[in-house]
Amino acid sequence: MPRLCKPAVQAPENVITMEETLDFAQRVHQGKPQLPLALRLIRNTGVQKRHIVQPIEKTLRHPGLTERNRIYEAESKKRTPAVVEEALKNAGVAARDVDAIIYVSCTGFLMPSLTAWLINTMGFRPDTRQIPIAQLGCAAGGAAINRAHDFCVAHPGSNVLIVSAEFCSLCYQPDMDDIGSLLSDGLFGDAVAAAVVRGNGGVGIELERNASYLIPHTEDWISYAVRDTGFHFQLDRRVPGTMEPLAPVLREFAKDHSWDAGNLDFYIVHAGGPRILDDLAKFLEVDRKVFRHSWSTLSEYGNIASAVVLEAARRLFEEDTPAPGATGLIAGFGPGITAEMGLGTWAEYDPQTID
Amino acid sequence: MPRLCKPAVQAPENVITMEETLDFAQRVHQGKPQLPLALRLIRNTGVQKRHIVQPIEKTLRHPGLTERNRIYEAESKKRTPAVVEEALKNAGVAARDVDAIIYVSCTGFLMPSLTAWLINTMGFRPDTRQIPIAQLGCAAGGAAINRAHDFCVAHPGSNVLIVSAEFCSLCYQPDMDDIGSLLSDGLFGDAVAAAVVRGNGGVGIELERNASYLIPHTEDWISYAVRDTGFHFQLDRRVPGTMEPLAPVLREFAKDHSWDAGNLDFYIVHAGGPRILDDLAKFLEVDRKVFRHSWSTLSEYGNIASAVVLEAARRLFEEDTPAPGATGLIAGFGPGITAEMGLGTWAEYDPQTID
Repeated sequence: MPRLCKPAVQAPENVITMEETLDFAQRVHQGKPQLPLALRLIRNTGVQKRHIVQPIEKTLRHPGLTERNRIYEAESKKRTPAVVEEALKNAGVAARDVDAIIYVSCTGFLMPSLTAWLINTMGFRPDTRQIPIAQLGCAAGGAAINRAHDFCVAHPGSNVLIVSAEFCSLCYQPDMDDIGSLLSDGLFGDAVAAAVVRGNGGVGIELERNASYLIPHTEDWISYAVRDTGFHFQLDRRVPGTMEPLAPVLREFAKDHSWDAGNLDFYIVHAGGPRILDDLAKFLEVDRKVFRHSWSTLSEYGNIASAVVLEAARRLFEEDTPAPGATGLIAGFGPGITAEMGLGTWAEYDPQTID
Repeated sequence: MPRLCKPAVQAPENVITMEETLDFAQRVHQGKPQLPLALRLIRNTGVQKRHIVQPIEKTLRHPGLTERNRIYEAESKKRTPAVVEEALKNAGVAARDVDAIIYVSCTGFLMPSLTAWLINTMGFRPDTRQIPIAQLGCAAGGAAINRAHDFCVAHPGSNVLIVSAEFCSLCYQPDMDDIGSLLSDGLFGDAVAAAVVRGNGGVGIELERNASYLIPHTEDWISYAVRDTGFHFQLDRRVPGTMEPLAPVLREFAKDHSWDAGNLDFYIVHAGGPRILDDLAKFLEVDRKVFRHSWSTLSEYGNIASAVVLEAARRLFEEDTPAPGATGLIAGFGPGITAEMGLGTWAEYDPQTID
C-alpha cells in the first residue's frame, strides 16, 4: 500500500513575530474603528512568529498584481527545488523514479504550472504526470495526499511527489479592513513543503483510506474575491465553528474503517486557527495535545495553507515515531468548506522484502 | 474497466463568424503595421464561427479583472448545470451516483472551485471528491479523462463527472498586438462540456491506458502572463510545429499497448489549430479525415480549450458509432508543452451482465 514518506519543509528567512504584527497593525489601523478588533484577532491566532518571502516593508506595499505574480513565480522557482530534493532524499527515491507531481498552491497563478519547470530543471522524466491544484486552498494538502494515494493504487508501484508552495504574504491587501483580511494579516505565513508517496516500500504512513466531505451550503464561508489587485481572502464569522459539524463526519469515516476517530495513535490535521484545533479536540473527545504537531506548526509558522498538514507530518517523523501499526488520521480543511481526510498506519519495513 | 460516456456540450448564443472577426480586426488594427499579419492569422485558423458568452461589443471592451472574473463566475453558474444534467442523462447515472467531479477551466479563477456550488445546487453527495484543475490549459480535457480513469481504477465501481467550462472570450486583451494575442483573437471560442466516466457499465470508450508527455524545455511556448488585467495568452511561433516531436511519442504510447497509432479506428484529438491537425496526420501517416471530429469542432466552435476533446468525442458518439472493440486514441495538447494521451476501445454492452 502507498506510503507517505517524511516531508521536507522550508520557511523563508524573513521572520515576523506576533509583537511586530501587533505593532504594524497599530500603525496601519491607527485611529480607525477596527483597531481593537484587529489587535484582538491577531492575539487570538496563537501565532508567535511567521516567515515570509520578502522583508516586511516590501510585504506591506502592494505593487500591483502583475508584479505580485512575477514575485510569486520567482520565489517559487527559488525556493521549491531544495525542498523537493530533500523530500526525494527522505523517501529514498530519485527524480527519475517519480511518476506524478501533484502541485498545490493557492497564493498565485502560473500556467503552465510549476510542474513543467520542475520536470525540465530537476531531472524528472518527460512522462511524469502533472496534477496542479490551485482551488482547494488549505484543504489542498490533504487532497494532494489523497490523490497521490489514489494514483499509486491506480498505477501500482508508482511514486508521487507532492509539492505545496504557499506564499500567503503575496496576497496581503493593505486597503482591506473586513474581518477576513484583519485576521489573515495576523494568521497566514509562507512556506514550501514537499513529500513523496511511495507505491512500494519506504518508511512512513501507509495510506489505507481516503474521503472528502463538503459541509452543505458553506461555499461562501471561505473564498477569494478575484480582483484587479489579485486574490482577496474572505472569511465568514461562522468558519471557526465548523469542527462541530465535521467531527461526526470524521468519526463516521474512521468507523467505516473499523477505527475510532477518538482513539487513534496520531493526528495530522490542518491548523486553520486555535479554535479549529480546540473544537476538534472537544468534539472528538481527545486531549488537545494529540494535535501538538499542528499546534507547533501554527505557533511557529502561522497558517501556511496547504503546507500545514505536510509540516505537521514532518514533526511527527521528527518526534519519537509511532510504533509500527500505529493508527492515524490526516485531515485538511479549507474552502468549500471541504475536509480532505485520510487514514493510515505507521509502517517501517518493506513488506516485500521482510514479510 | 472505466468508460467515457457520451459528452454533452453547449456553446453560448452569441455567434461571431470569420468575416465578422476579420471586420473587427480591420477596425482594431487599422493603419497599424500588424494588420496584414492579424488578417492572415485569422484566415488561417479555419474557424468559420465561434460562440461567445457576451455580445461582441461587450467582449471587445475590457472592464477590468474584477468585473471579468465576476462575469466568469456568473456565466459558469448560468451555463454549467444544463450541460451537467445532459451528461448525467447520457451516462444513465444520477447526481447521487457521482463520486468525484473533475472541473477543468483555465479562463477565470474561483476559490472555492465551482465544484462546491455544483455539489450544493445539483444534488451531488457531500462526500463527492472535488478535483479542480486550472493550470493545464487545453491539455486539461485529456488530463481530466485520464484522472477520471485513474480514479475509477483506484475506487472500483465509481463514477466521475468531468466538467470543462471555457470562456476564452473573457481573456480577450484589447491592447495586445503580439502574435499570440493576434492569433487568439481569431482562434478561441467559448463552450461548456461535461461527460461521465463510469466505473461499471455504460456505452462508450472503455479507457485502457493513459500517459502524459512534456516536450522538454518548451515550458514558455504556451503560457499566461498574469497581470492586473488578468490572463494574457502568450504563444511561441514554434508551437504549430510540435506535432513532429509528439507523433513519435504517440506511436510509442500505442506500441506499449501493442497497438499501432497509425492504424486505429477513431481519433479524438485536441484541435489547437489547423497546422496541429495537418501535421499530426502527416507524422502519424494517417488520412486527415480521421480527425474529422476535431476539424468540425475547430470550424464550428474555434479552439474551445479543454472542452475540445469532449466536443470532438460528442461528434464520434453522434456519428455512426464504431463497432464494439474498435480502437481509439484520445489526446489533449496544451501548455507545458504537454500531451495527455489515452487509449480506449468502443464498448456497448455491460460485461458484468452479458459476459
